Amino acid sequence: MFVNRRSVQIQWGDCDPANIVYYPRYFAMFDDSTSIMFEAAGCSKQDLVHKYGLVGIPMVDTRAKFHIPSTHGDWITIESRIESIKRSSFEVVHRVFKGEALAIEAFETRVLVGRHPDDPNRLKSAPFPQEIIDRFMKG
Amino acid sequence: MFVNRRSVQIQWGDCDPANIVYYPRYFAMFDDSTSIMFEAAGCSKQDLVHKYGLVGIPMVDTRAKFHIPSTHGDWITIESRIESIKRSSFEVVHRVFKGEALAIEAFETRVLVGRHPDDPNRLKSAPFPQEIIDRFMKG
Amino acid sequence: MFVNRRSVQIQWGDCDPANIVYYPRYFAMFDDSTSIMFEAAGCSKQDLVHKYGLVGIPMVDTRAKFHIPSTHGDWITIESRIESIKRSSFEVVHRVFKGEALAIEAFETRVLVGRHPDDPNRLKSAPFPQEIIDRFMKG
Amino acid sequence: MFVNRRSVQIQWGDCDPANIVYYPRYFAMFDDSTSIMFEAAGCSKQDLVHKYGLVGIPMVDTRAKFHIPSTHGDWITIESRIESIKRSSFEVVHRVFKGEALAIEAFETRVLVGRHPDDPNRLKSAPFPQEIIDRFMKG
Repeated sequence: MFVNRRSVQIQWGDCDPANIVYYPRYFAMFDDSTSIMFEAAGCSKQDLVHKYGLVGIPMVDTRAKFHIPSTHGDWITIESRIESIKRSSFEVVHRVFKGEALAIEAFETRVLVGRHPDDPNRLKSAPFPQEIIDRFMKG
Repeated sequence: MFVNRRSVQIQWGDCDPANIVYYPRYFAMFDDSTSIMFEAAGCSKQDLVHKYGLVGIPMVDTRAKFHIPSTHGDWITIESRIESIKRSSFEVVHRVFKGEALAIEAFETRVLVGRHPDDPNRLKSAPFPQEIIDRFMKG
Repeated sequence: MFVNRRSVQIQWGDCDPANIVYYPRYFAMFDDSTSIMFEAAGCSKQDLVHKYGLVGIPMVDTRAKFHIPSTHGDWITIESRIESIKRSSFEVVHRVFKGEALAIEAFETRVLVGRHPDDPNRLKSAPFPQEIIDRFMKG
Repeated sequence: MFVNRRSVQIQWGDCDPANIVYYPRYFAMFDDSTSIMFEAAGCSKQDLVHKYGLVGIPMVDTRAKFHIPSTHGDWITIESRIESIKRSSFEVVHRVFKGEALAIEAFETRVLVGRHPDDPNRLKSAPFPQEIIDRFMKG
């Protein structure tokens, strides 16, 4: 399945008084990585909204295991892979490397949602567009 | 075991373009909740650092399942419970309620760390102070 | 003019490796304070959107002067005051106190915006609803 | 004086329910930009701490004027320039461009600080190392 890699430099403001990354910041990096993976597959978040009429791809279940800490100035590589695609949900695995070492493993299950036809303030699951599935399958 | 509850109002800046909470913000709220639970048990983060010589209680494994979304203005209740305590690690469960409904379940495994005696830039696991265990047991 | 005060406890994740608040976090606190001041005056952000058809009250100019640092565990008081109201913009002053001492002064100029009638992706300034002006004047 | 430019893509999580960047996120980007400018001049934040014994370069006064909003997917260029250097403080100007257009202007006055010799929990201003001044002057 589709894999995307990107390098990220840990910044001062990502770190806490223990001088290591404040872990909620990693989830923001993973969310960015999922968006960037979609964009790399030819479907940006803007496309999801404007071309496919979706509202977003909210998280339903996520887990992260932290093996090696990082601090400001460190460069990490985030490798993101679509693991499975179902009718209106999908799984992503992110693996963070410091050099050769596996620093973090993270797992996401997300759902594709649009506005509910009866109430625009509510969200409703939406099918994964076949065109995007095809792009991820080719990757 | 020790349980702490607090009410949090979701703010505009917690939410994303889908008009629901950007999920990394929940992890920041859970980190705050764990700190506030320690403080409620009589041991603040400042005590961990200054009284017990620790550097922090970093996350080693966390998971969250999101059942019901929230938006700005909503009030949620975060109920945090120490689930287990081992020699130098512990588990916390956070349950988020919107009214009576369970909106999110989150699980944390954290480790207590101090500076490594051989290299102050490295971290080393440290034993859970018995005095704090006693406080959590009483709660 | 209308004044609102609230107490905020600085959290671990608000702080950086220097063990003081990472200053962008203060701007998030000030944004929350402006929202909470509107809500205290009887007009929440939800009201701005759903009752008055606005998209938001984005920042056009903000400044902050930091006199005294704070760290995790500290309690600060944020005092927020509407300073002036023009046709479609307004000024807010936030003053942060640690005990009696003035720790931070912040200034905001914001504009009220709605969707542009010709292009819903663009924003357009909107008049300050007289009903809300009246509430701020009474405060 | 020294100038550094970098490109940043606005991400989903940088944006708020109005679908534009939540302005505190810009201050985090500017803080990163100042760090990256120091690194480009040959002095990373790690060098400031480990080589020069500083604790950080906290903000004392900052202002930002927002002319053009951005949303997720947009690319911006942040141009950062050291404007002046005094004994233990300095000024930075950040200019954000969307294409050719000036989107944001931001001004910072920061101070260099170390630990107070009498109390390691307090901060004390520290002189700007001549070696770093020389690098910025050459730039």
